[in-house]
Amino acid sequence: MSQSLYVIGHQQPDTDTICSALAYARLKQKQEVDAVPARAGEVNSETQFVLNHWDVQTPSLLEDAATERLVLVDHNEYSQTVPGARDAEIVEIVDHHRIGDVTTSEPIFFRNEPVGSTATILTHLYDEADEPIDRETAGLLLSGLLSDTVVLRSPTTTKIDRAVAERLAETAGVDIETYGKDLLQQKSKLGDKSPREMVLGDFKEFEFGSHHVGIGQVETVTPEAVLDQQDAVLVAMDDIVDEREYTTLLLLVTNLLEEDSTAIIAGDYTETVADALDTMFTDRKAFLPGVMSRKKQVVPPLEDAFS
Amino acid sequence: MSQSLYVIGHQQPDTDTICSALAYARLKQKQEVDAVPARAGEVNSETQFVLNHWDVQTPSLLEDAATERLVLVDHNEYSQTVPGARDAEIVEIVDHHRIGDVTTSEPIFFRNEPVGSTATILTHLYDEADEPIDRETAGLLLSGLLSDTVVLRSPTTTKIDRAVAERLAETAGVDIETYGKDLLQQKSKLGDKSPREMVLGDFKEFEFGSHHVGIGQVETVTPEAVLDQQDAVLVAMDDIVDEREYTTLLLLVTNLLEEDSTAIIAGDYTETVADALDTMFTDRKAFLPGVMSRKKQVVPPLEDAFS
Repeated sequence: MSQSLYVIGHQQPDTDTICSALAYARLKQKQEVDAVPARAGEVNSETQFVLNHWDVQTPSLLEDAATERLVLVDHNEYSQTVPGARDAEIVEIVDHHRIGDVTTSEPIFFRNEPVGSTATILTHLYDEADEPIDRETAGLLLSGLLSDTVVLRSPTTTKIDRAVAERLAETAGVDIETYGKDLLQQKSKLGDKSPREMVLGDFKEFEFGSHHVGIGQVETVTPEAVLDQQDAVLVAMDDIVDEREYTTLLLLVTNLLEEDSTAIIAGDYTETVADALDTMFTDRKAFLPGVMSRKKQVVPPLEDAFS
Repeated sequence: MSQSLYVIGHQQPDTDTICSALAYARLKQKQEVDAVPARAGEVNSETQFVLNHWDVQTPSLLEDAATERLVLVDHNEYSQTVPGARDAEIVEIVDHHRIGDVTTSEPIFFRNEPVGSTATILTHLYDEADEPIDRETAGLLLSGLLSDTVVLRSPTTTKIDRAVAERLAETAGVDIETYGKDLLQQKSKLGDKSPREMVLGDFKEFEFGSHHVGIGQVETVTPEAVLDQQDAVLVAMDDIVDEREYTTLLLLVTNLLEEDSTAIIAGDYTETVADALDTMFTDRKAFLPGVMSRKKQVVPPLEDAFS
């Protein structure tokens, strides 16, 4: 019995991670590889909307990857991988983030490009393999791309993303702005979430030198839904810092319409973070004009500051 | 004044590393990037033959990269980079080895593929950029490819390498076997080398867990030129182990015609190495039938054994 190959994205999966796992597993299957799309956590409400819209089954949850063969999509650092990934065999990586700490003992295919979404790169991998992209797969890839680039508005968006989005929208038969706004609406649904769920909903951990740093992000058209309950959010953040022993914990509340963010901080090193982000914290809150991207505008200066 | 971008391969440069630096810098220049090909050490006799044959200037030596912007070719681990690379800005990587420990704070272009040479991948990057490959550049790329794959005989050789080699040979106007044999002859010239130079001529360092391991390789059609002076070679190896504090130091003497290797060992952990390579050492020497590739047949089992 041959072993399956799991195509899997990061923990706290977002739409680009789930749709990339689905689309890349489909490409592998066309190439006669026994590939299975998987996920490392619960899907969020935006992703659930996408899966319903395109009538696609949710990838199955992989709880422990220790003895498996993995293709990593949309991440390349151990602190973000499925549990057990350090003991798994990583056979491929497709990503659009900084180069992280994953190492292998054999040469593998690793494609990392500084574009707005992993879905953008996967579209090119379909082209290179000379495989057509069907309507449903185009819908999935477009969803990943529009979600990660905030409908082409994030500063991470490149010319390449725009060209790929237009082409995918045509194949999928949807309008970028109309479908994109439906996505944004879903992303903004904070509804009944607890403060803890707001912080940990879209959350990433980083090892900056010896520092263990957590950065959550809420992307919304109604930031006041979070900021009005700042005290409750701070209590939740303080708890998380204690439990997980973070040096610093940051929550970015990003206003998708105004294209700026408010940062809320817990843990230590407030001044280091303030200097790195060129801002000031008052009552543990700071305004970050023009900041929409955790990856491009927050992680690099924090890494420099902590290292 | 805008800062130059150095395109640079690994220490103890071989023909693939030098020719890849040259060919990729040329592609960048066509794309209006101020790129400079560079090297991290002395060129070997085979590479000198290639540069003379195609009438190409030797890349300049970069002694300290600390304040520079770098494109790494043909390697992606710090133990193999130019001095200062940890403090440099690494803006791109093109390689065909295992995924090593280089990390970045920003997303970058990283293209790693399990093919026989970095030159093979660069040929595809010319295609993707829609840039034609001129005769001289084809000669350089072909030299890197044939050198790293031992004229398409190494087990690292893929179908892709064969197809690329045929195409480059046609553009360069040379016959693969005839030109390849000229290369092999150069590689085999051990001539007046000291035992120390034999060990360190084509040499790589690895961090396997907490172990610092060095692996040299002599590829030759006359292995007896090394093996007949085993005692002198062992003295040189013992000295190197003391100076550099290696856990283990291995020299592979690879017979290009018979397609096998003899390993000579210094330092500790002889039994770990013997088990990993499925062999036995007698008088610190072991035979490895069918082994030609350090990267594919020696590094992975050693890494597993030491980690």
